[in-house]
This record gives sequence, structure tokens and C-alpha cells, in this order.
Amino acid sequence: MSPSLSRPLRTGVVVVAGGSGQRLGYGIPKARVPLAGEPMLLHALRAVQAALPNAVIAVAVPSGDTLMRTICARFPGEVSVVDGGTTRSDSVRAALGVLPADLEAVLVHDAARALTPPEVFHRVAAALAAGADAVIPAVPVVDTVKDTAPAPAAAAAAARVVTGTPDRSRLRAVQTPQGFAAALLRRAHAAALSFDAGTAAAVTDDAMLVESLGTEVYVVEGSQLSLKITTPLDLVLAEAILAGGHHRQEN
Amino acid sequence: MSPSLSRPLRTGVVVVAGGSGQRLGYGIPKARVPLAGEPMLLHALRAVQAALPNAVIAVAVPSGDTLMRTICARFPGEVSVVDGGTTRSDSVRAALGVLPADLEAVLVHDAARALTPPEVFHRVAAALAAGADAVIPAVPVVDTVKDTAPAPAAAAAAARVVTGTPDRSRLRAVQTPQGFAAALLRRAHAAALSFDAGTAAAVTDDAMLVESLGTEVYVVEGSQLSLKITTPLDLVLAEAILAGGHHRQEN
Repeated sequence: MSPSLSRPLRTGVVVVAGGSGQRLGYGIPKARVPLAGEPMLLHALRAVQAALPNAVIAVAVPSGDTLMRTICARFPGEVSVVDGGTTRSDSVRAALGVLPADLEAVLVHDAARALTPPEVFHRVAAALAAGADAVIPAVPVVDTVKDTAPAPAAAAAAARVVTGTPDRSRLRAVQTPQGFAAALLRRAHAAALSFDAGTAAAVTDDAMLVESLGTEVYVVEGSQLSLKITTPLDLVLAEAILAGGHHRQEN
Repeated sequence: MSPSLSRPLRTGVVVVAGGSGQRLGYGIPKARVPLAGEPMLLHALRAVQAALPNAVIAVAVPSGDTLMRTICARFPGEVSVVDGGTTRSDSVRAALGVLPADLEAVLVHDAARALTPPEVFHRVAAALAAGADAVIPAVPVVDTVKDTAPAPAAAAAAARVVTGTPDRSRLRAVQTPQGFAAALLRRAHAAALSFDAGTAAAVTDDAMLVESLGTEVYVVEGSQLSLKITTPLDLVLAEAILAGGHHRQEN
């Protein structure tokens, strides 16, 4: 942990808008899928700016996606746009490359979490300002979670078998924005460049890279409103949240 | 695994309606909370009967909850009602006690999963008929899941720290109905009677009890529609699902 500071940190936010959106069934990249009539990315950018008005924002868009760049241009705020890479980490690295070198903290956020309430950004930022080098928002896990493995061929018409049940009370479902000391995040992403393809593909969040350096990662409270919009049913929920004004109060 | 049978098994269904509903904020037990104007339990019973019309149904309700018994009486189908116990396992055991002794298979279902589509019941029943002794429905995990532990007091305003990131591709979020060979489930629940209070409280599903006997548990595909309705936002989603007719198609 770094010493606690009494002033806000110079902060950058990386917004990752690289998802394919395959499961949403629109045939367009996820961050361009409309939500209450506007692309998901626009909702996400608005949430970032409302929560952290002084932050520098860099968005990683699918390479060559000019429509995504048009969406960023429409956003009434300054945003750097870069072409993302093959993996999520490639995209984060590309965005880090265009953020100012003198930032103290960087938050990484998924555009697919378009409705993240400001309180979540604030909790992450506050923990960084209090001296944490790595902070992630998370919520308790509702369903029992099992560790599984492929089943022996055609066993009882089931594809997988259970190999264990981790203690649910210790598990947390992790969201974004994930916040880091800027130098630490840059170092973690530089180290990840040497990963083989299999390891790189298994990296599902930035905290994993920081954990692999041995840095302590702190957990603050996330929000059910910060769901990752992935399936048509998630869109139904997101539309219901917006229609009901539920996104203006924590849940 | 038991030998595969070509006929449907004599099947019972335990419906657990014991949740406190505290997080829903209605101040009444969860299964009585209204969903599109009707108590959740009624939706759940209807789903069970539509999927498995020949199954014998036993419902475990909160002890002494006469209103819950009235709901069961209103249901146009035969249902045995028993008082549940302190833990979820106590309630399942009580319901097993009133199911016929000659059943071949028993499914255990949460009343809070009021919108489970028939296909999920059918996949569980089919795997049992194909010879599996234990079958659970599950869906892939969308968020990264972390193993966590309490943080050192007041560290960076965060309550917990990350202790590891299990491989997300192996994890599954488990739902109900969970299906078992009847004798196996009775044996597993008898063995659980000797658990100390801490162990008993950590049992979050029936499959855990069967796993602890060393029996192979198979995984079939669940459904996003089979969400466990736990928070006000889950109710918003459930209402949107019912209003949009989404529960009549798999998602």
C-alpha cells in the first residue's frame, strides 16, 4: 500500500469496448448495441464522466470500427480513441499507451457495464486515494458455484461433471471499474506481454495480472446495477432498469 | 451410474419455499412475494406441474406459515405441505419424509426460481432416466469470480482482499431443479444429520451432500430464466420477463 493521500489522485479511465456482442444477436459489436435508443458505449462514457468529471478517458474500440469512433466523437467530453487488440489485455495496453504518463491512478471499465452507478466508481477511487494499489468492486455470489470438468464421452447426456464446490461465502463476482496505481497497472501489462497464447486467453480481468505480481488486491462493494450486458435477457433487464429509473438509486 | 431405462422414472419433486425474503424488502417470506400479481410459490408450482405432470409434489414452507399453506391449497394440483426446518437441508429432509417411499427419482427445486422453463426440468429428468444418479442444471459464469478473505482491519476502506482467481472456464453457476436417484438423496440427507452447525450452514445445495458421499454429479444446461429471485432488481427482471413473454422461449 502507498501512503494515504488527502487529495484526489490524477486519474485516467480506460474503457474497453471490444466485445463481439455475438450472444446479443444484433450482428454488431456489443458496445454499439442500442439501449433505450442509444449505443451502450455512450451510456458507459456518460457514467464514467458523471462519476469522475476530472478523469482523462481513453476508449479501446474494435480495430477499424469507424462507427464506434463516431459514437465517441458524439460524446460531449474529451475522449482518446485507440484501436483495440486481439485479447482484452491487448486492448487495455493500447489504451494505456495514449493516457498521459504522469497519471497516478488508472481505472479500467467494461463498456458492457453501461449502467454502473457513480457510487461504485467513487468507492474504487476512494480506496486508491486511501493508499490501496489495486481495488476491485464485487458482489456476493447468489448461486452455488461448482468447479467442473468435461464428462466422459456421452455420459448420461451430460457435458460436464462436478469436481468440487468452493465455499460460496468466500466467493465474489467481480465487476469493473477496477482501479490501480498507474505504474503498477503499466508494469502488470508489460509483464503480460510474455504470456503464451493460452495464458493470455485465460486472463479475464486486470486484477489477475496484478495478482500474478504478488500485489494485494482489495475488494469494495459493487452493485447489481453494474451487470455486464451479455445476453438478450440482460438487455431486457437493462431496459427495465432505465425505464424504471432504478439506475438512479443503489440496489 | 444406474443402468439406462427406456421408461420415465417414478418422480417426486421437493419445492423449498423457506427463504426469508429479507433482501426483497416486503417483510414477508420470499415465496409469498407477488410476481405479476401472484405469489412466487404459485408460479413455481405451476412450472413444476407443467414440466412434470406425473410427478408427486411436496412443498416445505416456513414453520407455522398458514398463508403459505393457503397458497398451496389454491394450486390446482395435488401437493403435500410440510413445515420446513432451520436450514435448507432440514426443509428438504422434512419434505422427503412425506414423499412416497417407492419413488425412483427426486428433484429438489427452489420456489425462488419461479420462472424455470420446462426444458430445464426435462434435461434433468432425461439425464436421470439415462442412468445418472445426480444431475444439476448450471450456466456459465459471466463475471470473473475471486476467492476472497477478510482484509486486515480498515485496510484502504476495503472489507476483503483477493486470495485467488479460479479458472472461470471451469466454473458453473448452479441452479435448480437438482435431480437424484431417490435412495441416494435420502442417504445423503441422513448422513447430513451428523454435521456440526457450521458445516450444515455451509451446505448451499443438495449436490454438495451427494458429492460428499463420493457420487459423480453430472451437469446439464440451465437457463438464464431460472434466476433465483433474491433482490428488488431480480423482481424487476422477473416482471419484465413475464410481461414480455420471454419465459415462453429459452434464452
